[in-house]
Amino acid sequence: MSLLVVGSMAFDSIRSPFGEVEKVVGGSATYFSLAASYLAPVRLVSVVGADFPPAVIRMLGSRSIDTRGLTVAEGKTFHWKGFYEYDLNTAHTVTTELNVFRDFAPVLPEEYRDTPYVFLGNIAPSLQLDILRQMRRPKLVALDTMNYWIESSPGPLREVIDKVDILMVNEGEIRMLTGEYNLVKGARKVIGWGPSRVVIKRGEYGVLHLSDGTMFAAPAYPLETIFDPTGAGDSFAGGFMGYLAGRKGGDLADSDFRLATMYGSAIASFTVEAFSTERLQNLTPEDIAERLGSFLALTEFRV
Amino acid sequence: MSLLVVGSMAFDSIRSPFGEVEKVVGGSATYFSLAASYLAPVRLVSVVGADFPPAVIRMLGSRSIDTRGLTVAEGKTFHWKGFYEYDLNTAHTVTTELNVFRDFAPVLPEEYRDTPYVFLGNIAPSLQLDILRQMRRPKLVALDTMNYWIESSPGPLREVIDKVDILMVNEGEIRMLTGEYNLVKGARKVIGWGPSRVVIKRGEYGVLHLSDGTMFAAPAYPLETIFDPTGAGDSFAGGFMGYLAGRKGGDLADSDFRLATMYGSAIASFTVEAFSTERLQNLTPEDIAERLGSFLALTEFRV
Repeated sequence: MSLLVVGSMAFDSIRSPFGEVEKVVGGSATYFSLAASYLAPVRLVSVVGADFPPAVIRMLGSRSIDTRGLTVAEGKTFHWKGFYEYDLNTAHTVTTELNVFRDFAPVLPEEYRDTPYVFLGNIAPSLQLDILRQMRRPKLVALDTMNYWIESSPGPLREVIDKVDILMVNEGEIRMLTGEYNLVKGARKVIGWGPSRVVIKRGEYGVLHLSDGTMFAAPAYPLETIFDPTGAGDSFAGGFMGYLAGRKGGDLADSDFRLATMYGSAIASFTVEAFSTERLQNLTPEDIAERLGSFLALTEFRV
Repeated sequence: MSLLVVGSMAFDSIRSPFGEVEKVVGGSATYFSLAASYLAPVRLVSVVGADFPPAVIRMLGSRSIDTRGLTVAEGKTFHWKGFYEYDLNTAHTVTTELNVFRDFAPVLPEEYRDTPYVFLGNIAPSLQLDILRQMRRPKLVALDTMNYWIESSPGPLREVIDKVDILMVNEGEIRMLTGEYNLVKGARKVIGWGPSRVVIKRGEYGVLHLSDGTMFAAPAYPLETIFDPTGAGDSFAGGFMGYLAGRKGGDLADSDFRLATMYGSAIASFTVEAFSTERLQNLTPEDIAERLGSFLALTEFRV
């Protein structure tokens, strides 16, 4: 089944202890779409400026990514400039130039409106709500957000969280959102609001996935070379939702969400091995299967 | 088989967001011995002052802990005073009163010298070396250390590390010790020095266990109430080494070290549920088996 993503497409300028790149392709919807495209057909909703390379849009379209929901607007593409220290878990922002993203108010193409799987990337909660209003009974909706919206837009954010199935945030965000330092208590609070699952992203420490009756902890893969963590969270989300959308079979069981978590982790572990989408866009199904096997070897024990 | 531990016994005065305690029983050898005593007979080497409660020594002796190597010296017991903020991964020291521990220079009882399993707790590297010199061909030796010794005693520390089988440290310590920020690279460097395994303790994020050809990642158990992380690392080490020492069967395989890691994690997860050794000293074999089962449920997935 297909999978709709709404989010940013951007140019990123990034400095890390391992190098520096200027205006490379990034953005949450870009990373998400590429990651998910290995597993399910994707419908992309985003906006870029006239300066965005048409070759990249063609590259996306040549995969299983439907770009009819991508608007090319007059003006410049969203540009994020930031850096990482050795602690790759913390991104430091230098500048954020919203450019064409400032007026982003997506109207879904008619044929997108009954997409069963939906990922609402990190954009204004009012826009996330607006997308949901345009959808017809999606089967599963996941949502990402960030500290900026938690502080500046708590009302609409809470309204949209209450309507989704899965909240995907990092540790700092769930603490800020719930006022609970303890992650288990925080997740329980969110589950009381409406979502049935909370996925807490912990960077190099992996992922904690909580539902009403179960907990699942997945490590990140201990890589020897991590170049650039940008896009890891969105690649994770893309692998996660891509697995669920692409899967054959009936109702989703807890074991499906666990395997989705591992697909997300596996694909995200490739993203950080290079700047931009370089590694992510050049995977084979064998690469992904092999990394899943490595994750199994990394976590397996017998009592 | 039996298991020798050398380390501190102490009074701890601790403040955390969840309460405050004054001069409760602590120390690395105390936590280690109690944790290991569920799984193997322990031989304890430490020193306390005349102010240390005889009832606690009797309690240790009433379990499978041999206290002939425990010296009761004139003077006061080692006293650590510290606090935790909400981030329970970081202990802030207020004062350290070494007291009788300042002159600790253990001479092993004759019947201790052929103990097959040895844990060298966090004490001066020169003392750790001295203990090793008194042992006859131990089967497996693990070592803990801390930033203080890495800075002040690099020569003797390196000498003792080269002689042990397993180095158990936290993330900051392996970085400081090896000059490598990346944990996989740091572990590889240590393995090049002599140890065959490196166990990296990451507090609430669990444990990363690396050997020459394998990696194993174990999460910490996501608890809803964590009162006091003091002693978690030593309880982990006690469960880990206790499992290996108590196990029946021939040569140790990688799967044994994995299960040892889970025993350590399970027992440590009880330690943090209360101040001091309160919870740790009141476990049943069923508690431990049940927690191991919970860890399996926490990490299991099928590809």
